[in-house]
Amino acid sequence: MRYRFYNAKILTMKEYEDIFDGEIYVKDDRIEYVGPKKPEEGDFDRQIDVENNLLMPGFKNAHTHSAMTFLRSLADDLPLDAWLHEAVFPREAKLSPEDIYHLSKLAILEYLTSGVTGVFEMYLTPDSIADAFEDCGMRCVQTGSLNDFSQSVEKLEEWYLKYNKEDSLNSFIPGFHAEYTCSKSLLEKVADLAHKYKTPVWCHNSETVFEVESCKERNGGLTPTLFLDSLGIFDHGGGGYHCVYLSDEDVAVFKKRGMGIVTNPASNAKLASGMADVTRYIEAGIEVAIGTDGPASNNCLDMFREMFLTEAFAKLANKDASALDARKVLHMATVGGARVMGLRDCDVLSPGKKADMIMIDLKQPNMQPVNNIAKNLVYAGSKQNVKMTMINGAIRYMDGEFFVGEDRDEIYRKAQEITDTLTRS
Amino acid sequence: MRYRFYNAKILTMKEYEDIFDGEIYVKDDRIEYVGPKKPEEGDFDRQIDVENNLLMPGFKNAHTHSAMTFLRSLADDLPLDAWLHEAVFPREAKLSPEDIYHLSKLAILEYLTSGVTGVFEMYLTPDSIADAFEDCGMRCVQTGSLNDFSQSVEKLEEWYLKYNKEDSLNSFIPGFHAEYTCSKSLLEKVADLAHKYKTPVWCHNSETVFEVESCKERNGGLTPTLFLDSLGIFDHGGGGYHCVYLSDEDVAVFKKRGMGIVTNPASNAKLASGMADVTRYIEAGIEVAIGTDGPASNNCLDMFREMFLTEAFAKLANKDASALDARKVLHMATVGGARVMGLRDCDVLSPGKKADMIMIDLKQPNMQPVNNIAKNLVYAGSKQNVKMTMINGAIRYMDGEFFVGEDRDEIYRKAQEITDTLTRS
Repeated sequence: MRYRFYNAKILTMKEYEDIFDGEIYVKDDRIEYVGPKKPEEGDFDRQIDVENNLLMPGFKNAHTHSAMTFLRSLADDLPLDAWLHEAVFPREAKLSPEDIYHLSKLAILEYLTSGVTGVFEMYLTPDSIADAFEDCGMRCVQTGSLNDFSQSVEKLEEWYLKYNKEDSLNSFIPGFHAEYTCSKSLLEKVADLAHKYKTPVWCHNSETVFEVESCKERNGGLTPTLFLDSLGIFDHGGGGYHCVYLSDEDVAVFKKRGMGIVTNPASNAKLASGMADVTRYIEAGIEVAIGTDGPASNNCLDMFREMFLTEAFAKLANKDASALDARKVLHMATVGGARVMGLRDCDVLSPGKKADMIMIDLKQPNMQPVNNIAKNLVYAGSKQNVKMTMINGAIRYMDGEFFVGEDRDEIYRKAQEITDTLTRS
Repeated sequence: MRYRFYNAKILTMKEYEDIFDGEIYVKDDRIEYVGPKKPEEGDFDRQIDVENNLLMPGFKNAHTHSAMTFLRSLADDLPLDAWLHEAVFPREAKLSPEDIYHLSKLAILEYLTSGVTGVFEMYLTPDSIADAFEDCGMRCVQTGSLNDFSQSVEKLEEWYLKYNKEDSLNSFIPGFHAEYTCSKSLLEKVADLAHKYKTPVWCHNSETVFEVESCKERNGGLTPTLFLDSLGIFDHGGGGYHCVYLSDEDVAVFKKRGMGIVTNPASNAKLASGMADVTRYIEAGIEVAIGTDGPASNNCLDMFREMFLTEAFAKLANKDASALDARKVLHMATVGGARVMGLRDCDVLSPGKKADMIMIDLKQPNMQPVNNIAKNLVYAGSKQNVKMTMINGAIRYMDGEFFVGEDRDEIYRKAQEITDTLTRS
């Protein structure tokens, strides 16, 4: 397929490049041309009048547990402990790989409505998850959710070798759930794997005060970051999800190892974990990205809300309305995400890059008048502004319709059926 | 006009009433019937199949400065002081009543996309604002923005007498900008007005630490609430916008005087003012509502984002994931707003009440699977879910189209023209 998008405003997200008027050509899975209007060159299968709306790189949802859709709004307003042990764990234990396939598809629909073109996924059954993303045409970087009771280092190795094929929508980076759910001997095996393949490793890290304090008690005063690093797990980089409570020493480790951080502000707020101040991490030179976390703790998968919250928490934590320029947040949600996920070709709009691109409706009242589109996306943008989501050169969502190989209502029906079965017993 | 809405899920927002399946009849400006499906009674001008989506009362945006749309994204990421004195005040000084008319209309379009059926407005020229709301068919309760440099107590009295006619879309409650912009002698005249008409009085109150501390310095240690109350301003009730920093003594005054509080979480975050913990106010028995504040400090007019933020700040401030049940937030955004705005007939869906009603699209992925619709509205809802906004029995927004007596693009064009003129010089 060859597309021409004309009459467009274009935000490439290349550093220091402002929005300009022009055209984008897409050929198969890649961007062919980005620049000013020019005489049509060659044949196109489809020409789309962008009507002066905005084309920009898709958002990267850099931390999520997609299939937790079944828990959405099932157990809100509970203390964290009761939520985990009474609402989440007993039901998760009953999930089959096929359940996770269908529940992931429901999440994929929501990603599309929010302009997400790639996710950094961590959940129970990587094979059925990869199938769901492949079948829907959505890009997915998975990491392991290894802990003492589920998955194994051998399985991580198997998935790592299986899912990192050139030009696939699926890829895999080794990872584990968190320090507090893994024995030291298991973590040492993870370090061996990292060394064997010189690969980065990801995990939940320093989400709550309790997590940090109990880790220090268990491990001679070492924080999760210092303890895990002492085992050699981050010798080839990687990163942490949440990172609400990092000490200056922790931040120095992230910097030294070239690690990334994914902030999850809505989840941290809803579970009362705290506010991550990402300005500290950015100033230290760390690549920071943004994720929704799973729909059980959020409850939605909306990158616009996460962008605003990232700003809100930075300004509140610093007591400074000028903290964290909105352009930086837009970078985190697009380029930053691509970088920490290892998606080298999915960061900006430029010839040769993957065509992971969205169209933003500037004709909604929240985008009027036009003063500063880039900043307004962060402060006023909403799912309602997403007109199109294209992944790998294929339109998967446009004007409210989904193109994911299965009917929307059928995906809803299956997700509801699975949810009803899981929650009845 | 007589409408029948059938195949609906209905959330009346009457206390303790759960969502049920049924029908709603609307006759002229009022609700005629709410209840289970029944044989059609009489003639209808229009019958609408709700397709199992949700009907509920419209949101009340209980604090806003609508015409500030022209400043949206013009000056973000500035320190509060520079923002006010360099970006806002010099441009506001050049606004004509006609400018404010057109700029208010742009805000009205956005309210409609967010399911807002009534706003509590505070801005410079009440007459041209009332015209804008009347012409678009949107409900508006105005208060004064009186201060030492603009408006007068005589004008407040004139507007109070002019705009409180039975069955009008416009009403007026006396108010002033804030303690720190009004001299004591002016405030004493406001108190006289309150006594003359036994009317409530509203103002910005305790938005920042600086505001509270400087008021105490000026007024013998009295907080804004205590100082204003000492003048008799709140002898017949009223309330405060923002209220981020209320002492226990302040809260006691609000309770004793039957005053309301409007929280503005997005604005408080973007301007780094702080987090209001509304649970304290609710526990004290005060009626709390939610507002967006103006689009210059937010930048959008989105009640879904405000509801989530109200939750987020309550949970973070209390370090407790169970703080503030989502049903309470839904109450604040609908019934609470109607109550503090004096809109006795616009609170719940019930026969005889005004037909201020919205339809929520439950077929979007963020509303699936269906576990708890009411809570999910607060945690996952988005403008994208608003299918219809009806005010006073008239559909003003449906499936992305506006019905406000003027073309959407014409409203955009005028707002842009005014913005360009104001910001050029």
